[in-house]
Amino acid sequence: MSGTVVFQPHGRSTEVEAGETLLEAARRAGVEIESTCGGELRCGRCRVVVLEGSEHLSPAEGEELELLRDAMDMRLACSARVQGGRVVVLVPEESRPEHTSRKELSPRRVEVEPAVRAVRVEVSPASLSDQRDDWSRVEEALRSLGIQAVPELEALRGLSDELRRGGWKLTLLLWGDRVIGAEAGEVTPLGVAVDFGTTTIAGYLVELTTGEVLAASSILNPQVRFGEDVLSRVSHAMGGDAQAKELAECAVLALGELVGELCEKAGRKPEHVGEMVVVGNTAMHHLLLNLPVAQLALSPYVPAVARGLAIRADELGVSGLPPASRVYLPPVQAGFVGSDCTSVLVALEPELGDGVQLIVDIGTNGEIVLGSRHRLLSASCATGPAFEGAQITHGMRAVKGAIEGVRIDPETLEPRLRVIGGVVPKGICGSGIIEAVAEMLRAGILTPSGAFSREAEERSPRVRRGRDGYEYVLASGGDTHVAVTQKDVRAIQLAKAALYTGCKLLMRRYPVERVDRIILAGAFGSYISREAALMIGMLPECHPERVVQAGNAAGDGARIMLVNRSSRELAERLAREVEYVELTAEEGFQEEFMNAMHFPHAVDELPTAKRLLGWD
Amino acid sequence: MSGTVVFQPHGRSTEVEAGETLLEAARRAGVEIESTCGGELRCGRCRVVVLEGSEHLSPAEGEELELLRDAMDMRLACSARVQGGRVVVLVPEESRPEHTSRKELSPRRVEVEPAVRAVRVEVSPASLSDQRDDWSRVEEALRSLGIQAVPELEALRGLSDELRRGGWKLTLLLWGDRVIGAEAGEVTPLGVAVDFGTTTIAGYLVELTTGEVLAASSILNPQVRFGEDVLSRVSHAMGGDAQAKELAECAVLALGELVGELCEKAGRKPEHVGEMVVVGNTAMHHLLLNLPVAQLALSPYVPAVARGLAIRADELGVSGLPPASRVYLPPVQAGFVGSDCTSVLVALEPELGDGVQLIVDIGTNGEIVLGSRHRLLSASCATGPAFEGAQITHGMRAVKGAIEGVRIDPETLEPRLRVIGGVVPKGICGSGIIEAVAEMLRAGILTPSGAFSREAEERSPRVRRGRDGYEYVLASGGDTHVAVTQKDVRAIQLAKAALYTGCKLLMRRYPVERVDRIILAGAFGSYISREAALMIGMLPECHPERVVQAGNAAGDGARIMLVNRSSRELAERLAREVEYVELTAEEGFQEEFMNAMHFPHAVDELPTAKRLLGWD
Repeated sequence: MSGTVVFQPHGRSTEVEAGETLLEAARRAGVEIESTCGGELRCGRCRVVVLEGSEHLSPAEGEELELLRDAMDMRLACSARVQGGRVVVLVPEESRPEHTSRKELSPRRVEVEPAVRAVRVEVSPASLSDQRDDWSRVEEALRSLGIQAVPELEALRGLSDELRRGGWKLTLLLWGDRVIGAEAGEVTPLGVAVDFGTTTIAGYLVELTTGEVLAASSILNPQVRFGEDVLSRVSHAMGGDAQAKELAECAVLALGELVGELCEKAGRKPEHVGEMVVVGNTAMHHLLLNLPVAQLALSPYVPAVARGLAIRADELGVSGLPPASRVYLPPVQAGFVGSDCTSVLVALEPELGDGVQLIVDIGTNGEIVLGSRHRLLSASCATGPAFEGAQITHGMRAVKGAIEGVRIDPETLEPRLRVIGGVVPKGICGSGIIEAVAEMLRAGILTPSGAFSREAEERSPRVRRGRDGYEYVLASGGDTHVAVTQKDVRAIQLAKAALYTGCKLLMRRYPVERVDRIILAGAFGSYISREAALMIGMLPECHPERVVQAGNAAGDGARIMLVNRSSRELAERLAREVEYVELTAEEGFQEEFMNAMHFPHAVDELPTAKRLLGWD
Repeated sequence: MSGTVVFQPHGRSTEVEAGETLLEAARRAGVEIESTCGGELRCGRCRVVVLEGSEHLSPAEGEELELLRDAMDMRLACSARVQGGRVVVLVPEESRPEHTSRKELSPRRVEVEPAVRAVRVEVSPASLSDQRDDWSRVEEALRSLGIQAVPELEALRGLSDELRRGGWKLTLLLWGDRVIGAEAGEVTPLGVAVDFGTTTIAGYLVELTTGEVLAASSILNPQVRFGEDVLSRVSHAMGGDAQAKELAECAVLALGELVGELCEKAGRKPEHVGEMVVVGNTAMHHLLLNLPVAQLALSPYVPAVARGLAIRADELGVSGLPPASRVYLPPVQAGFVGSDCTSVLVALEPELGDGVQLIVDIGTNGEIVLGSRHRLLSASCATGPAFEGAQITHGMRAVKGAIEGVRIDPETLEPRLRVIGGVVPKGICGSGIIEAVAEMLRAGILTPSGAFSREAEERSPRVRRGRDGYEYVLASGGDTHVAVTQKDVRAIQLAKAALYTGCKLLMRRYPVERVDRIILAGAFGSYISREAALMIGMLPECHPERVVQAGNAAGDGARIMLVNRSSRELAERLAREVEYVELTAEEGFQEEFMNAMHFPHAVDELPTAKRLLGWD
């Protein structure tokens, strides 16, 4: 038995196991809810409003009722358990933690001003004394509303019949000044925002008259069958036109499926979708559009095109939506800094702040942006997929059975595990491996160089020699065996060194000694333990309170660009203004990288990391 | 053995049998060449310049050399016989008859100012110190030439590779401000003008930098398999979406084939075709675009759309040319007055004249326009296909073996026949049947009511009772039997009455007593005997010298709109300004129609017709 929880106004949804609390569901969905007591039913701050499906929640009783005496129409997220079905909750302003409130990060309100709109017209009927063509009647009616429009062929194909079916009344779907659809009845135009990730494609169905998110869904990027990582897909595409087309076609097919799924969830028609906004890294962007990738894969790594593109759905081949509806792809920044990063900037607007912010978006690649209103720098760090749990001995995606959190008792070296779904662990996901390594460091199992400590081997049977050298056993017994190996630690060292080096080189180029805030964007950034990230030296020096988890900011930026077309100009400007830094061409890159391999760092002070590790 | 003759500056071409003269070929191509002596090698006025293929012509000798003493670089069209191969001739200004000179009909010179152009750019190479995307480099180069352009996805797909292949030099193909193609080498952009007839689709390949016609070709409209006439195709399309799609697809396929054929003829690449201009009657227009036709077929007979449309080749599905190249369809005027008529107006510009002109374009339908700079009226006459030789007992298309001209000796009632290809006659084509009926009238074989004369039956065995009533035998013997039957005469009577009634009602509406000029447009109008047309009372009173044959004016208008994009604004204005008259709704239609059934007319004077018939 499982259920779905949708969080508003975020518009994010997640699947839950029966028995999970709303607070746990929120965490999974990347939605932050204030909780001072840590979910122990003491502070009463995690208040939410249940909009739909209250019958699917465990009843409120005892302590919860007590804490809600002044707000009996609410529930506490840490206490209400989902028993199945679909639940929609609103996280009110006061229950959102200060540091991730959209208001603070994105002071510009998103005005509802989409590229797509529906216009209702009534026209004079055709007769022998008025034999004008049908379009002229419609054009006249539009003009009387002050609208100059150009019809798309596909809209004209349906216009005559719908006009007569509706008794000379008609709803027109417009994208800019283009008429892309015509329907006898009333139409509420829809849009879809898509974060087209290397592994996961996340989509949001948005009502364009209100900006409301009606449904959220995510599917596996079917291109994975051509390779898990970006590079193997790019080389597949370079194998010939047919192979490149194959990659594009399966990506386009996935977009169509996603739209279908979203519309089914929300009970809406795909024919009313007037626009999609799709963001992704530059390789995904090019592979989706079947643009050439050879020049992207080889030095000097340039995109075929960086500017934003609006492409007809039928030209791209996306099925289900109106053929003349548009797919807008915001500008990419460079060969390794994609439109997902542009989208993050639109969502977070670092250029509006006085302080210097560091935005870190970790997908399969680590894209980072450093800046303020004075200057923006971007770079791509070759972190590889280790942070996502790939290339880790017992690595797995963040699904049921994955260890996502680890605490190690420094005395006994015994671990406490947090497993998704609360079942017997099957492996470890990205956030789990980082926390495991951080805790192994703190407990002295690992030395600053990343080697296993002999002393720890003597203290605990969990530290032992496995097939491939030392390992630390997180769980074992029966079929279960999950351990962190020396190889895994090396993979994390390489990944964190790549990220840290990128941040450092951007800071040097800016120049700035210390950043005022670090924003972790992306799904991964939402689940990761900020403390663990600081402990292993992934991030430059920063107070943990100033490390902010922004959720799927790329998806959110796509939603903003969907709802507000003038934000696309912002996107174009930001993409143009950001200075891309080719890290490997920066002076001292090699040395910095080597120093960053150490935990937390060979040279840099990183007092916060040391404090958290208990090394100060 | 046969050959091809291309006439410049008309750009028309025709196939010829070996041995035919250039003058005969010109007539077939609808190109008029001055010839006072009627092609008898006496006046020396039919001078032409041979641009290509002089080796394929019979040598100049005797009388021809004498007549050309002052112009030894020319040939006389009546004397030079084609022996095969391809011959290109220029008809100089002085050899074009006054009344059909383009100059007189179309005083506006066609400036070469197409929508498509090729622009050569050189860009700065990509390097690690300049990692901008490829398009930005191209955009910068274009901007330095003062061009602001937007790239189409399809052009971007080829851009990166071509840029590198060309050593950072590139030719861009632009349609307006759209970049629709990119190629490393030099490109001369091409266009195709198409007259999309119910029976025949004629195409002209045009070099867009010069406006020169490189090749002409025509193919059978493959939609004929769904019905010879417009109405049966329209009802097929009304049978369901699949059937409508079937009609559209075969039409689109034919366009692709035509382009391929034209390019092969001229030795050019279809990838360099940046635009097609396609004109046709409203039903053909709608069926090609797969627009709905139900409202077109039923009263009040309105088009789905009248305005001009520019559609991407890939949206329409035309193969061979660049996917982002455009197909421009000029505006139609009404349900039964198509863009072919608009195109005729662009070519002939009646609105520039002071005198009142009557333009008659006979295809399967008869479209007529009456007007001057003061006013333009249009109408469609339901002539049916009789004028094209269809529904005529021994009717056939104007191909080899068709009787295209008839003279009857009033004394003996013996005919002299002109047969296409000079072979034994197999049937009679449209111009032949009209001339036959006119001559039968003049010789007294037919009475003014269209009945066969008993007296003629007594005078000649050629007038006899056949299976279906009376007939006049044009040719017989062996397998040969070609006759004009009573049924054929009735068909011609109905067709000519429809046309005459249309002309008369428009003149009444205008109002004007007598037109200053009649212009016969269309292939049919080029071959028809003006005298015969006047004799049977197809046309209102007019001096034969003032009846002008304008050739394929619809095709020529398409060429003009292809070469000169501002003429499209003229087309939009003309299509909007022409007042469409629904003939059947005009007062007195029935009575006028009945009166016009008579030869030449029951009531109207028509002195010219009577003089030609010898009845005055």
